Amino acid sequence: MSWNTFGRVFRFTTWGESHGPALGAVVDGCPPGLALNEAAIQPFLDARRPGQSKFTTQRQEADRVKILSGVFEGRTTGTPISLMIENTDQRSKDYSEIANAYRPGHADYAYDAKYGFRDYRGGGRSSARETAARVAAGAVARLAIPEVTIQAYVVQIGADAIDRARVDLATIADNPFFCPDPTAAVRWEALVDEARLAGSSLGAVVECVATGVPAGWGAPVYAKLDADLAAAMMGINAAKGVEIGDGFGAAALRGEDNADAMRAGDNGPEFAANHAGGVAGGISTGQPVVCRVAFKPTSSILTPVDTITREGANTQVRTKGRHDPCVGIRGAPVVEAMMALVLADHKLLHRAQCG
Amino acid sequence: MSWNTFGRVFRFTTWGESHGPALGAVVDGCPPGLALNEAAIQPFLDARRPGQSKFTTQRQEADRVKILSGVFEGRTTGTPISLMIENTDQRSKDYSEIANAYRPGHADYAYDAKYGFRDYRGGGRSSARETAARVAAGAVARLAIPEVTIQAYVVQIGADAIDRARVDLATIADNPFFCPDPTAAVRWEALVDEARLAGSSLGAVVECVATGVPAGWGAPVYAKLDADLAAAMMGINAAKGVEIGDGFGAAALRGEDNADAMRAGDNGPEFAANHAGGVAGGISTGQPVVCRVAFKPTSSILTPVDTITREGANTQVRTKGRHDPCVGIRGAPVVEAMMALVLADHKLLHRAQCG
Amino acid sequence: MSWNTFGRVFRFTTWGESHGPALGAVVDGCPPGLALNEAAIQPFLDARRPGQSKFTTQRQEADRVKILSGVFEGRTTGTPISLMIENTDQRSKDYSEIANAYRPGHADYAYDAKYGFRDYRGGGRSSARETAARVAAGAVARLAIPEVTIQAYVVQIGADAIDRARVDLATIADNPFFCPDPTAAVRWEALVDEARLAGSSLGAVVECVATGVPAGWGAPVYAKLDADLAAAMMGINAAKGVEIGDGFGAAALRGEDNADAMRAGDNGPEFAANHAGGVAGGISTGQPVVCRVAFKPTSSILTPVDTITREGANTQVRTKGRHDPCVGIRGAPVVEAMMALVLADHKLLHRAQCG
Amino acid sequence: MSWNTFGRVFRFTTWGESHGPALGAVVDGCPPGLALNEAAIQPFLDARRPGQSKFTTQRQEADRVKILSGVFEGRTTGTPISLMIENTDQRSKDYSEIANAYRPGHADYAYDAKYGFRDYRGGGRSSARETAARVAAGAVARLAIPEVTIQAYVVQIGADAIDRARVDLATIADNPFFCPDPTAAVRWEALVDEARLAGSSLGAVVECVATGVPAGWGAPVYAKLDADLAAAMMGINAAKGVEIGDGFGAAALRGEDNADAMRAGDNGPEFAANHAGGVAGGISTGQPVVCRVAFKPTSSILTPVDTITREGANTQVRTKGRHDPCVGIRGAPVVEAMMALVLADHKLLHRAQCG
Repeated sequence: MSWNTFGRVFRFTTWGESHGPALGAVVDGCPPGLALNEAAIQPFLDARRPGQSKFTTQRQEADRVKILSGVFEGRTTGTPISLMIENTDQRSKDYSEIANAYRPGHADYAYDAKYGFRDYRGGGRSSARETAARVAAGAVARLAIPEVTIQAYVVQIGADAIDRARVDLATIADNPFFCPDPTAAVRWEALVDEARLAGSSLGAVVECVATGVPAGWGAPVYAKLDADLAAAMMGINAAKGVEIGDGFGAAALRGEDNADAMRAGDNGPEFAANHAGGVAGGISTGQPVVCRVAFKPTSSILTPVDTITREGANTQVRTKGRHDPCVGIRGAPVVEAMMALVLADHKLLHRAQCG
Repeated sequence: MSWNTFGRVFRFTTWGESHGPALGAVVDGCPPGLALNEAAIQPFLDARRPGQSKFTTQRQEADRVKILSGVFEGRTTGTPISLMIENTDQRSKDYSEIANAYRPGHADYAYDAKYGFRDYRGGGRSSARETAARVAAGAVARLAIPEVTIQAYVVQIGADAIDRARVDLATIADNPFFCPDPTAAVRWEALVDEARLAGSSLGAVVECVATGVPAGWGAPVYAKLDADLAAAMMGINAAKGVEIGDGFGAAALRGEDNADAMRAGDNGPEFAANHAGGVAGGISTGQPVVCRVAFKPTSSILTPVDTITREGANTQVRTKGRHDPCVGIRGAPVVEAMMALVLADHKLLHRAQCG
Repeated sequence: MSWNTFGRVFRFTTWGESHGPALGAVVDGCPPGLALNEAAIQPFLDARRPGQSKFTTQRQEADRVKILSGVFEGRTTGTPISLMIENTDQRSKDYSEIANAYRPGHADYAYDAKYGFRDYRGGGRSSARETAARVAAGAVARLAIPEVTIQAYVVQIGADAIDRARVDLATIADNPFFCPDPTAAVRWEALVDEARLAGSSLGAVVECVATGVPAGWGAPVYAKLDADLAAAMMGINAAKGVEIGDGFGAAALRGEDNADAMRAGDNGPEFAANHAGGVAGGISTGQPVVCRVAFKPTSSILTPVDTITREGANTQVRTKGRHDPCVGIRGAPVVEAMMALVLADHKLLHRAQCG
Repeated sequence: MSWNTFGRVFRFTTWGESHGPALGAVVDGCPPGLALNEAAIQPFLDARRPGQSKFTTQRQEADRVKILSGVFEGRTTGTPISLMIENTDQRSKDYSEIANAYRPGHADYAYDAKYGFRDYRGGGRSSARETAARVAAGAVARLAIPEVTIQAYVVQIGADAIDRARVDLATIADNPFFCPDPTAAVRWEALVDEARLAGSSLGAVVECVATGVPAGWGAPVYAKLDADLAAAMMGINAAKGVEIGDGFGAAALRGEDNADAMRAGDNGPEFAANHAGGVAGGISTGQPVVCRVAFKPTSSILTPVDTITREGANTQVRTKGRHDPCVGIRGAPVVEAMMALVLADHKLLHRAQCG
């Protein structure tokens, strides 16, 4: 696994910067014979696409994906699938101020410390635009795991969490927040709008559930399904925490309350609960795989913040460009993509070893 | 990275089961010329060693490490370092009952689903004894990053968290809980003892801080320092959640409250806060690297739990063997080891690319 | 290392088929700050480009490379460098016959056996056009190893070898064969022309020498510099053999004749010979790194050959499309590129471990 | 793939030095449920074991393998298999002279140049004793590919090659040279004995044939079966060349003579020849996989050779310790092991991607 590659046998490599001509992903190891064309990928990119409501960045990107290789007569050939998305709405002038001043919370200072200089336009490689490439790759991954259904949604914005009793997954697409609780969705309109107008930003928590994962995917000890999910999710821009199953809540439980008791069922075991989030010992149990990802508030805010220049002088910076008031919202399609990519990889890894 | 190997250039591979003759680690890619002998490793193994108080499993293992290769005249040669720890206190009879009944919360069912059968003695490969090998490897990793100091401690057992105002890191070694808050340590004695006597178990949260990490370690996008830490920590037995910096708490912050403002300092920038936990864009900022790991309560409990047999019949199981009432406590030295292993790897990766 | 990725820390992934819209490489792990633009890559692509003489395929490809990412203001940023070359002279009709009949010596049957079907246009992924992507990536690799000079040349076409006494490296560019022996170059004109007109093809041997490689690059035991070179070279289309130093000739030597005696020199040791080809124990010795690659005759020939159809019926096939009468000739720039890529990787690997 | 690890999904890591307490291999990714015990490995180690005739080193090593993990009730569990072989006949005094003087042809100088110092006893990590670990790992790999039969034999010692018309594979075990031509075996007795008594050494060529490999193993482009074989073989101590099929001989053929014509057969295609050595486009064709490996003469010779000391002064060195007069002979079991390891890996890789 190199710097910009993820996965073990189903692998993808992404490239591209916020303000370059294009970005893309090369998916390698995909099984042959899967039906694939651009139309199979585009809906997932559209779900992540910015500029669709006032609650996300106003950057207008069509995010049209092109398949450059690996598909012949509508089917994957088993060779690398090159996916490219052109950048069409770069406005380099928006970012001229940050060429010299480090934006706190952004990767500006860290990139300079590492590489000696950086592409400062829109954050360069550290921009969340990179996640478009993941979403495209994730759409391919889904084809490799048709037995699995993946659904991510936002369960908290700022300090305002959904009411689990009100969850109706069918309503997720009815609001601009990927929110499964219609009542919360109404509250979030005001909440996010207030932050947007104040030039502030909000954090969020995204939950993702994969159903249909058979028991047996994953591996000991350093290729655990949950460990790979943790890496996948923590590597998403702005992610600061990952939980599997009950996560941090499990720390407060007693052993007898955390046990997922088993009973004989018609189609394998039935579990009385799913505190484990579908993974035990790093291997799937057949229950839904459940994870949650915490996103910090968007670091780009209009409020001036103390910082320093490249030369080390004190200054202040505020980020005037277009940005998401709550980057976690558009994190939901990205979380889904990473879940698909991890599961596809582990499906293939499992059959490599176990036939 | 294969199933039982961790790392990119500073890599280690572990092997061994709970009840086999031995377990071990092979550390590859270690820089040459580092002073290393068994005495440099043993203290870390001793910190993790079971049977030192009534609050951990009573299995008696000396956990004496032997260096079988990679060291000549007291210094690492740059070739693989083979570390072996013999198992001396296996009692296979303790585990006879679980050969047939799956223990909920354990990997028993998942392993059988994956491999078709399993070494049921003490959990086999899924046993937390494997973490002894990590701790040994981690002791080697520390030698490769002398500029870094790593300290892990328990910040919560069950629902009882420390008071941050009372934290005194110097007191961690004064109690059997790696607890930095002396008042909490007193409470935890009663708390853990109650659970132990009740045949129950408790979860915990471990925090780990690495100071001295220079700015620039880590990498975009799928080799982020925090993503690798997430994988490292989530792969520890019983871990269910990982946070960097403010973690899930960051989701509830507004952008201006989450910004780590910078000011010019005598030795590089000074930060007004460390919400980011020392990582931005996947690259270290020079601030302390901070992560937290949630451990579920030990799944081995004396309370009978509903389960099924290998043949799919309903039954109940209770785990009579020796076990930790709170496995998170002994997680602290393991978390430290994984932190060291990730940082050593990223130090080497950084100089590979950036010289 | 996945299917279409090569390298350990300086890595590249290629994608694309002979008759797709484009092909490319993503170079990852490149050091930051190197001066790079398209003009630095193009000459190497031009050296490999087809259609420049009657001795190579008449397919006309400009092979213009575009840099899509990883470069800012003329310097590498340390992030992935995406290189793309558009295909402009595909003639799918040329290859219609081979959609059904397997061409002996080609990958047609093997691909079908593996994947169940294949992109038959021009050989799809198995086409030597893929090597254009390697050459582009290799041009980037050269920038990372400015201390090294790499030169490949053809030392044998068919059974006709150069006379080592006549070698003048300055004459390599004077003939269309990358031939360092002007007398042989004259003979080869007739030799290759005869094969071309007869609809036949010829094999070749390419030698490559890298000077300036310091002692210490490479590693035991499964990352040996020569082992990585062997993989790099054997993976080139039509390669069937690889030698380091004296290679197969060394098998016929006695120990005292094969020893590269050392004497004290002003700048490190001086060697009386270089039977070893600059590598001992998998690690460079400071002498020139020397390897040779055997290329089989182009499998595409006009002579009808017995074969079978996809349905398993007997038939004959002859390859009417455009092709190289001696694919080994254009192998020389590809061998150079692979040498550069292996050396750049090992330079970075060496400093990862040894600082 | 790290320095001391080989393979992609069926992977092994070796450790150990010539004069340390032990050496070993950790095999990871092995399919579960395979019958394995020490007796299944020992015969392969015995074939490679030194001291069995006057034609190999007189070092007496029992080379008894111990399985430390990964096997339960006689079957592989799918978890890492740790194999250990203790060193019993180290005589460190034999090697005292070479602590300071570099032996030409050996890795002494290169190791010092890389690491700054080295374990000089018996060559340390660069000793061919490491190949015992490969042979043990290869014995496990064979279990994963029961459909394949692997046979290696020596086809040339010094300049004396076998007569292919006399080959009788059944006679390989009848002589101490793994020689399939009984007439050559007689000649080689005198040949090797002369070199041994003269304190000299001889090179050799080993050929290896794997039958039963189905069509479809291998992959484009950087995971080609032949490229992986090339790396595997070139990484063996003293190897200087690798050929697949006709190898360098193919360079002298015309296209029509090199074509492996196909005819319909009862069980898939039948090939008129096997110039390709069973691999096309990096993927197996169903024909026998054939490779040859050139071994240089043993670098340890009694004849004094000019060299320098660690301090850079001129001196001479001769290697008085025990050594093989022709290290290529004992290379045959190692070549078999590497063939098995590559094929097992590719079998698993193939089913990962293609099911």
